[in-house]
Amino acid sequence: MDSYPPSVSIDDVNQAAKRLNGKVTRTPLLESARLNQWLGQRIIFKAECFQTTGAFKLRGAFNFIASLQENGYIPRHIVANSSGNHAQAVAYAAAQANIPVTIFSANSISAVKAAATEDYGAELRLYATRTEADEAVKEAAAQEGVVWIPPFNHPLIVAGQGTAALEALQDINSVDAVFAPCGGGGLLSGSLVATRALAPDAKVIGAEPLLANDAARSLQSGVIESLDGPVSTLADGAATPAVGDVTFPLLQQLDDFYEVNEQQIAYWTQWLQHLLKVHVEPTSAMTMAAVAAWAANTPSGQTALVMLSGGNISQASMAKIWATDYLLQPPIIG
Amino acid sequence: MDSYPPSVSIDDVNQAAKRLNGKVTRTPLLESARLNQWLGQRIIFKAECFQTTGAFKLRGAFNFIASLQENGYIPRHIVANSSGNHAQAVAYAAAQANIPVTIFSANSISAVKAAATEDYGAELRLYATRTEADEAVKEAAAQEGVVWIPPFNHPLIVAGQGTAALEALQDINSVDAVFAPCGGGGLLSGSLVATRALAPDAKVIGAEPLLANDAARSLQSGVIESLDGPVSTLADGAATPAVGDVTFPLLQQLDDFYEVNEQQIAYWTQWLQHLLKVHVEPTSAMTMAAVAAWAANTPSGQTALVMLSGGNISQASMAKIWATDYLLQPPIIG
Repeated sequence: MDSYPPSVSIDDVNQAAKRLNGKVTRTPLLESARLNQWLGQRIIFKAECFQTTGAFKLRGAFNFIASLQENGYIPRHIVANSSGNHAQAVAYAAAQANIPVTIFSANSISAVKAAATEDYGAELRLYATRTEADEAVKEAAAQEGVVWIPPFNHPLIVAGQGTAALEALQDINSVDAVFAPCGGGGLLSGSLVATRALAPDAKVIGAEPLLANDAARSLQSGVIESLDGPVSTLADGAATPAVGDVTFPLLQQLDDFYEVNEQQIAYWTQWLQHLLKVHVEPTSAMTMAAVAAWAANTPSGQTALVMLSGGNISQASMAKIWATDYLLQPPIIG
Repeated sequence: MDSYPPSVSIDDVNQAAKRLNGKVTRTPLLESARLNQWLGQRIIFKAECFQTTGAFKLRGAFNFIASLQENGYIPRHIVANSSGNHAQAVAYAAAQANIPVTIFSANSISAVKAAATEDYGAELRLYATRTEADEAVKEAAAQEGVVWIPPFNHPLIVAGQGTAALEALQDINSVDAVFAPCGGGGLLSGSLVATRALAPDAKVIGAEPLLANDAARSLQSGVIESLDGPVSTLADGAATPAVGDVTFPLLQQLDDFYEVNEQQIAYWTQWLQHLLKVHVEPTSAMTMAAVAAWAANTPSGQTALVMLSGGNISQASMAKIWATDYLLQPPIIG
């Protein structure tokens, strides 16, 4: 690619879809008749929580490695820094390609995520802080034959994540709005690329935690803003300190963007788990606050596609989510 | 039928399956590669949590009403007593048949279940105690044109519930053991009838809460024993005071039966929600304690079918289930 930052086109997403065909799960679409009735709109969920490793992240990681292989380059070793879904995805995708992999993480990583990462065959190196882990991965990546797979800020990652919306849009007749959560912006910007090509009239709308609202601030100021320090939000998959220079220009094309408070995140996690009978992450459910706002301000009878990003949740998060009873007040609109 | 209590045959289950075809959801089969590896067996889950109304109960209710209609009898009014999944199933099935329905329940019914029952179009009558509700439903059922749909102790209910295992066994090549939870015994005895016909060499194994072990005691003594009073178990779907004279003779043909303590129930609910990404009820997850015991005492490489009964869980139960971190200790066998 000639310019920097490189952009991502629907051709990139289509190419990723070809690479992923038969290698990753074509996840199901889910719907709740009661939710549709309450909101006055049809809401269709793409359930990436049923993706192998429990989140959409496998798509980007798989696309990245498959692209290297296509170009005749088999890395001697793969490294990545993550404490969450990206770690598990890279561990799994590298194991499938028979390439050794090391994940660099802070030792605050949850036991269940650490166990899953090691189960998928990765070596896990733990550091006192995330900053130290990030330094260590850079050093490792500087070595001959070692490839670092970034969590979101790369065209191959964005294109890979875009295949989830691509599949859903191929399965749905028509759609008026597409919603996705925003961490580093990989899933959201990939969904935007797919939607602009397959459903050009549909709105594309993002959501992030109010406590980690770097993307909202960046979209307002027009430059990439970073969080001041680590934040504690239920939507841990969207606590990324900043978006990247690949994802940001795409995010600037969004039709709307919402900041969601912790109570709303817990509320919608309870309701989605209850209505859909799916173990969805708070990061996924957060997006529903944007959907409800859209539903209230839109003529009824429209169709929305909601990207459920994943289903990897620690016990500590589940205990917090379910501490208060939000099921007493159904999400009735209008 | 000539003798009492009437028995249930595979013909009854097949007939129920014909009635239900296209009317209830053919629920998916789920699997966890990690769980299979840990247990050394292949475990296939029939996910009735994805059934309409969130539980297998719709099958029996639907079969009961469809059978009446086939015989040219359209009740003027349907009544049922339940505080749980049966109430929602009867409310939904009666609404589908355009028959008015009243559900009799104790006012201790959870708000979320009450709301769902009313959402499906039922009138809900609340009483100070379950005993008063049970008396009231009897009075109502004594009136001309009113039909009471029992929760489990009827051949049409057992045959309807048996269609879940029937579908699963049609979808699976071969199976060595079938597991289901036991409340009144409808799902478990229906599963037994289907399994004996389609997989005669497979073991059929049940599980109930240790705190509500009336079925275990009945199987031991050879007569139907009742719980002394109401019990508080996480597996609220299996807190039924006693099995019935239709289900008991079938339960006596089981190959094995387990009593499961509350800690095991919470442990397996966390693990199944985490591994399968499904919002399964404690009553469903309870069965895994029996599966783990079977897996540890069985040559590896066998296949088990596990009936996940439903996914309707109150906030209070979720808070209890997730209060302790059981995900620190994976369920590794051997």
